[in-house]
Amino acid sequence: MSLQQISSFAAGEWIAPGTGARTIASAITGEAFASAGNSALDVQGMLDYARNVGGPALRQMGFHDRAKMLKALAGALGARKQELYDLSFNTGATQSDHMIDIDGGIGTMFVFASKGRREMPDGQVYLDGDVEQLSRNGTFLGQHICTPLHGVAVHINAFNFPVWGMLEKLAPTLLAGVPAIVKPATNSCYVTELAVKIMLDSGILPAGALQLVSGGLGDMLDRLGMQDVVSFTGSADTALKLRQTPAIVNNAVRFVSEQDSLNASILGPDAEPGTPEFDLFVKEVSREMTAKAGQKCTAIRRIIAPETSVQAVIEALSARLSKTLIGDPRLETTRMGALVSNGQKQDVLEKAAIIAQEAERVFGDPENFSVEGADKDKGAFLPPMLFHCADADKAERIHDTEAFGPVSTIMGYRGLDHAINIANRGQGSLVTSVITNDADVARGVVLGSAAYNGRIYINNRTSMKESTGHGSPLPHMVHGGPGRAGGGEEMGGVRGVKHYMQRTAIQGSPEILSAIGGTWVPGAPEVEGSAHPFTRKFGELSIGETLHTASRTVTMDDIELFANFTGDTFYAHMDDDAAKRNPFFPGRVAHGYLLLSFAAGLFVEPNEGPVLANTGLDNLRFMKPVSAGDSIKVRLSVKKKTRRTDEYGEVRWHVTLTNQDDEMVAEYELLTMNAY
Amino acid sequence: MSLQQISSFAAGEWIAPGTGARTIASAITGEAFASAGNSALDVQGMLDYARNVGGPALRQMGFHDRAKMLKALAGALGARKQELYDLSFNTGATQSDHMIDIDGGIGTMFVFASKGRREMPDGQVYLDGDVEQLSRNGTFLGQHICTPLHGVAVHINAFNFPVWGMLEKLAPTLLAGVPAIVKPATNSCYVTELAVKIMLDSGILPAGALQLVSGGLGDMLDRLGMQDVVSFTGSADTALKLRQTPAIVNNAVRFVSEQDSLNASILGPDAEPGTPEFDLFVKEVSREMTAKAGQKCTAIRRIIAPETSVQAVIEALSARLSKTLIGDPRLETTRMGALVSNGQKQDVLEKAAIIAQEAERVFGDPENFSVEGADKDKGAFLPPMLFHCADADKAERIHDTEAFGPVSTIMGYRGLDHAINIANRGQGSLVTSVITNDADVARGVVLGSAAYNGRIYINNRTSMKESTGHGSPLPHMVHGGPGRAGGGEEMGGVRGVKHYMQRTAIQGSPEILSAIGGTWVPGAPEVEGSAHPFTRKFGELSIGETLHTASRTVTMDDIELFANFTGDTFYAHMDDDAAKRNPFFPGRVAHGYLLLSFAAGLFVEPNEGPVLANTGLDNLRFMKPVSAGDSIKVRLSVKKKTRRTDEYGEVRWHVTLTNQDDEMVAEYELLTMNAY
Repeated sequence: MSLQQISSFAAGEWIAPGTGARTIASAITGEAFASAGNSALDVQGMLDYARNVGGPALRQMGFHDRAKMLKALAGALGARKQELYDLSFNTGATQSDHMIDIDGGIGTMFVFASKGRREMPDGQVYLDGDVEQLSRNGTFLGQHICTPLHGVAVHINAFNFPVWGMLEKLAPTLLAGVPAIVKPATNSCYVTELAVKIMLDSGILPAGALQLVSGGLGDMLDRLGMQDVVSFTGSADTALKLRQTPAIVNNAVRFVSEQDSLNASILGPDAEPGTPEFDLFVKEVSREMTAKAGQKCTAIRRIIAPETSVQAVIEALSARLSKTLIGDPRLETTRMGALVSNGQKQDVLEKAAIIAQEAERVFGDPENFSVEGADKDKGAFLPPMLFHCADADKAERIHDTEAFGPVSTIMGYRGLDHAINIANRGQGSLVTSVITNDADVARGVVLGSAAYNGRIYINNRTSMKESTGHGSPLPHMVHGGPGRAGGGEEMGGVRGVKHYMQRTAIQGSPEILSAIGGTWVPGAPEVEGSAHPFTRKFGELSIGETLHTASRTVTMDDIELFANFTGDTFYAHMDDDAAKRNPFFPGRVAHGYLLLSFAAGLFVEPNEGPVLANTGLDNLRFMKPVSAGDSIKVRLSVKKKTRRTDEYGEVRWHVTLTNQDDEMVAEYELLTMNAY
Repeated sequence: MSLQQISSFAAGEWIAPGTGARTIASAITGEAFASAGNSALDVQGMLDYARNVGGPALRQMGFHDRAKMLKALAGALGARKQELYDLSFNTGATQSDHMIDIDGGIGTMFVFASKGRREMPDGQVYLDGDVEQLSRNGTFLGQHICTPLHGVAVHINAFNFPVWGMLEKLAPTLLAGVPAIVKPATNSCYVTELAVKIMLDSGILPAGALQLVSGGLGDMLDRLGMQDVVSFTGSADTALKLRQTPAIVNNAVRFVSEQDSLNASILGPDAEPGTPEFDLFVKEVSREMTAKAGQKCTAIRRIIAPETSVQAVIEALSARLSKTLIGDPRLETTRMGALVSNGQKQDVLEKAAIIAQEAERVFGDPENFSVEGADKDKGAFLPPMLFHCADADKAERIHDTEAFGPVSTIMGYRGLDHAINIANRGQGSLVTSVITNDADVARGVVLGSAAYNGRIYINNRTSMKESTGHGSPLPHMVHGGPGRAGGGEEMGGVRGVKHYMQRTAIQGSPEILSAIGGTWVPGAPEVEGSAHPFTRKFGELSIGETLHTASRTVTMDDIELFANFTGDTFYAHMDDDAAKRNPFFPGRVAHGYLLLSFAAGLFVEPNEGPVLANTGLDNLRFMKPVSAGDSIKVRLSVKKKTRRTDEYGEVRWHVTLTNQDDEMVAEYELLTMNAY
């Protein structure tokens, strides 16, 4: 049988394997079926193409354009996901593993598309935080912005999730406006290759935005510069080697590392046998040990239970694990497939032998287990193996040895501080979980362990029906961890997009900051419109376009009428003596809501027009009380415009209310939907 | 004359210089006057003391407590700043340099104190961003938090700002809740030592929060772990060496680096001779060349001007520089003092010789200049030196050679893209400035250069009176830059505090998240109070304490009355046909402000009580229109409490309005001030 040729995609062309190609074996049969790698790949040409073709094309687009592109890519992948499933069985993964990898990857892309539209601007400059007041009179201000790096992102991915592993990095990279070169692990790169083909076939991406290296990277890392990023997922050893590449160190190239870690799960002291939490714990641990045959960087490697419950956990977990059918992942009955390769299987057995120096194996025998529908001596099969460590304090290797397969060690703790201490001995983890129905226990673990973890997952009877699992990184939340876990961060919504952007502090006048951010900054010149802004369509309104209203005097009758009408007879509005005793008021004052309502009366244009609705209001602050006899007037300026649908967009107005002495009485931002 | 003994402060004790001590010479006379360093310093003891004594004490406090501590420290330093001035002349700095260093450092501490109170919570857990909806029914949610690292921050500072350089790192470190070990450059460590003494004498700091190494660090960096941080300021060469320390690489120790860089200032094409911007440019460049004798990591090293203006800039700048009196910094007439040491002077001359290979010296002669009140052959004096490079494109060394003294090179550009290209050849800078009155020029430089800069400073006739200077990092804004500038970030308000904290993604039920963050999350159980919450004092209110009001029907008469009373006769409220044509409304609907006002009428307790004022409102969204005949009711829950003064604190209430079908009509957060 001839080998499948797994190609690279470099500078716009598919390059078949050549000199230096490696064969790839099926995880199920151990037989070579594919070949990948070409040492003649022009890596400098790939970098140039990304930097000079892909980058400029992506930067030309705005965040919303790129978010739409992500959504379309996710749709294209979704439409052909059966092809990806079919191909993925060779990696040893089951259909439910495929759901994590393929559907999970596509879902991640959809979330980034959605967050890009909702949380990032409809333009090229992301505003990071508020305007900073750097001067007394406000002629000199500060604003942080994020803009895309001008280089290329090199993604070095692990073998276990050939689709999700690519997409969880690709989505934030492309949303940022940075081209990517993806290098999947060779073991499973045929699945990644197909996913890349599907995306390229869709015609959605600009040229140069996405390239693929199937096989080795050559000396690509030696050619990186200060505008490039490396995002690595894999073992701590490989990360350590790569991050010391001279070009990376000398040029301060960003190196984001997400490494396997010794993740722990703690059974809360309250979660005794018989509670819903005890059963939930056993279920979570069992799932983490067997999903993807334990080849998950977030899998539970250390099970930390109250000393009094250790035996009960071992029994319940063993009972559950014994029902896990191992076999050809194509069989519907199979619950756990094969490891990715026989090399990986050997590595797991070696690591398990190290663990066995400090712990006793209490479930699973690699010499004695059954496999359905495949030859267990040819495929990379292993049973789940549970170890018990009698003294977690004395042990060393169970806290730093990761067997990247269906292997976990249980150990007992005496009190919550002891449990936290054991968990922290992992020296940095992607995730620690605690199963508890006691909020104090949860808070205790967080205060004691958050500094050692990228994520802390808490589950109990309230959340268990909707919880997503100890081992599931979500696009909304950061993924990564300190120390042993690599010190990196990925995803976490916009946080992950920022990894591919530079944050820059901008200082200048309000007019300059308005021009840069596309958002009107108070103090910038006001733009005079040709008519009342409520009569002008979305596209006609300029940033800074301003309306000044007439003024209206607030009378005591107004206050009385408003109080009696609304029922808001708060003493500060009704009782002069009580109001005077209050540290904020000179006597009876107008209701804040009365001022807002009068302000609307002053600025609203009543006739049917392009303003469709007032949808919200932000950052309202009342700055000075208004007494009967005072008058108020309004300034209303277009602060920001965001397209929302094909028919209308959101206008954010900056509004100030001032009194007869031009003192500011209130300030807020008003949201309207306006027709195009 | 016996040498001043500059001590270290280690594990609670002052340790005088000993074996391995180095002498320190006056910058003005070149004579040794002090000695620092002790190779017997117990660095492991210092680390242990910080981790085991200082860290726990600081973490016990909340952010507001620590912010108050910073304010008190800044006050203590301010009260004794004359002593610091007096001592600082020996470094060669003038009184106006001292203002940058000493007053600037104290001011930075005050800003962090203020930001800690205003932008961080009154508790131990910082909430980073909003709650993430991870489930359909909301029983499983996400929230990012930041908590202090459990290790120690080692601050390695540059010689040029012995006070500011310490305080700009110390303020965010202590605010985060992390103890610091400060290691100033030996050349000027006697000033830092006094500042540390003042802070320790004040008795404000808990034991272990601050230690000082005067002299060498020994093997301290080899002993760092995953909970520690190194924050380095200095040369690129030293940074490169330190960041490769095996313990730092192996343990993924955070290494924040802020390195000198080849900062550029661009004269806008619009800023021709005769404009206010041209004069401003000359003034800014001249100041950056001479302040602190050019020993500023942000100083302008490359002056980029339109080719047609290069000669005019050289002339104007030379005229200005020729008026810069050089001399003993103690003299009031002196405008530029000495470099920190004769070694530094030699280094600058060597670097200037490299620059001279590609550029011609057009102002300043190190062999021929005058010095007032000091012996120019003994002190470390140099004149400002301006070079002119005729072809910035061909040049290499002027873009990577930093003479860390009063040295700068001017070069011409042909168009804005060319100017940007030249600026970016610095391969990463702390700051680039552009002096322009044209917002398009400013935006162009930002889009082209932001990815290469930590800060972009824009100045013109509008902002020049209040602007703070190209070279001044401000505590509000990030300081640091990519590539050559080190790839690090400092300050930037809360951003800088996060460098000493771990961000952790927390997942769990609303109740669990509420307990962890001290902030009520919608969906968490409601707490029933013993009385109307408006009758209960700040201290009596519990997080989650909730009021459910009666309901009120909104009538067409109400809408009419409100419209006529307020003047808000917007068509959606008044014209049934027009409202029906609108995509959002079923016909005439109630005003949003009417709903807010009725809501207040429903929940307000009218009698005088602990609620002092409604101070604001955030995140209001109208979710469903209310028509005549619909009724609304309110749920009001205590979301968060923040102490503000000795008499009252802020209560943030989460408010929802629902209709007769329990559909949400509006949601917002209300702010009140409540008496204790």
